[in-house]
Amino acid sequence: MTDQRAFLAVDWGTTNRRVYRIVGGIVEQEERDDRGILAVGQGGFASEAAAIRARMDDLPMLCAGMVGSNRGWIEVPYVDCPADLASVAAGVAWVEPGRTAIVPGVARRGSDHSDVMRGEEVQLLGAVAARLVPENSLLCQPGTHCKWAMMAGGSIASFATAMTGELFALLQHHSLLAAQMNDTIAPNDDFRRGVRDSADGVLLTRLFGVRADFVTGRRGPTAAAYVSGLLIGTDVRAQVCDRAGEVFVLADTTLGGLYAAAIEGAGARAHLIDSHAAFVSGITSIWNTLS
Amino acid sequence: MTDQRAFLAVDWGTTNRRVYRIVGGIVEQEERDDRGILAVGQGGFASEAAAIRARMDDLPMLCAGMVGSNRGWIEVPYVDCPADLASVAAGVAWVEPGRTAIVPGVARRGSDHSDVMRGEEVQLLGAVAARLVPENSLLCQPGTHCKWAMMAGGSIASFATAMTGELFALLQHHSLLAAQMNDTIAPNDDFRRGVRDSADGVLLTRLFGVRADFVTGRRGPTAAAYVSGLLIGTDVRAQVCDRAGEVFVLADTTLGGLYAAAIEGAGARAHLIDSHAAFVSGITSIWNTLS
Repeated sequence: MTDQRAFLAVDWGTTNRRVYRIVGGIVEQEERDDRGILAVGQGGFASEAAAIRARMDDLPMLCAGMVGSNRGWIEVPYVDCPADLASVAAGVAWVEPGRTAIVPGVARRGSDHSDVMRGEEVQLLGAVAARLVPENSLLCQPGTHCKWAMMAGGSIASFATAMTGELFALLQHHSLLAAQMNDTIAPNDDFRRGVRDSADGVLLTRLFGVRADFVTGRRGPTAAAYVSGLLIGTDVRAQVCDRAGEVFVLADTTLGGLYAAAIEGAGARAHLIDSHAAFVSGITSIWNTLS
Repeated sequence: MTDQRAFLAVDWGTTNRRVYRIVGGIVEQEERDDRGILAVGQGGFASEAAAIRARMDDLPMLCAGMVGSNRGWIEVPYVDCPADLASVAAGVAWVEPGRTAIVPGVARRGSDHSDVMRGEEVQLLGAVAARLVPENSLLCQPGTHCKWAMMAGGSIASFATAMTGELFALLQHHSLLAAQMNDTIAPNDDFRRGVRDSADGVLLTRLFGVRADFVTGRRGPTAAAYVSGLLIGTDVRAQVCDRAGEVFVLADTTLGGLYAAAIEGAGARAHLIDSHAAFVSGITSIWNTLS
């Protein structure tokens, strides 16, 4: 039933969407679909929200993710690093007061260049709130754009984004190596060799080497797992080397398993954390701050 | 007229082709077209050669480049590093004895991975033969797949290939950054900033930073020159840092100018070398060894 703390939480990304009906911090209903912001399109968000309420319950709604970008429902300004639950909650924008709101993203404005996130901040802060990770720790969120966040005292102190997943997809679909990249990607020997070979830091040369090894008969025709290891290894080594001996990886088990293998391959320790539990914890914490 | 040393030289690449009528080491006629091996297709090479002879003269023909690959006329086995004029000439394969031949590519079979070239070896060896570069030097051939060759005693002692140009094209045409990459690419301030920013070695993060700097208002909408600087800077720093104070760049002035700027930005000295003169010198030297 509709108690005062009940609300609908929407993790509304570019391609996918997850909706949760949360009552007293407990997920009572959950659905996942591909109605990301690109599928919804501008002008379509109000009717999407109405449809969610029709399916789930007529409750207040708190959204996070790319729904707050310039291609989303309304553009919500970024909150700056260091960002904690209080500053993120203070940046929440109401589409309709008391009824529908959107969580802001977080920006890091460094001396040399900026970085931004939208949606990941809920998981990061939620992971600490739920005591899934220490208050001071290095968190990794693999994906198209992999986030690496330094948490300090439970705040997002700093973060960096690597274009790892996108670059892999470009190579797999459009490059000279595409025809070689049809094998299953798993933390197997090929993957681990890629992680090892990433240690010399010459990614541009290693990528061409995949082709050269094939035409000289040094390797078979398959290279997707190896290239994945090269890219994830490069990503991991840039972030982990001198920063922390432990990394907490927020991901599903497939991608999380690859990152864990690469992190271990780079000499650090990896812990897999349930990213959905972290999201629910974070969005509930923000909601409780608001209401 | 047809003296005994006259021949036709064909620099037959994947996309483009250059044909030279060379008499006594002098280019008497030259043409360039887009009849690369992909346009010709298997089975079409003999008639292409006949058409060239009909246009230029009925002379012996020496071809180099991807025409000797498994997608070319006939597949010519690679000659191994270290490779010099004599070993490359010894690897020439005759399509029709005394009449039409193809220069082999060169392979480096290192302890960790292999590398290959087809066509570049003619320029490299020719640059030394024509005394355009010292016998012991670092040569750079920018392009889709940038070659870096260590010449020792006039031989190709070792080389590495970086996927620099291809990666740039992937980013420009298919990535999140594509919409930002419409500006002219020149060795301007943006390019030089990219070269500077490549020094931290975190390419994957710098690429996402291009997007983040835009959405946070830190940079304007254009980034092609900057991304070019990032990539070429990354390529140059991997090869130049501890290897040589001088780099000889074999390229046209546009791409050569970018590499020269990046090499200077990385603290080394760059010399632009005429790559066509190097090719003519190399192919003539190989021809003279054969005949």
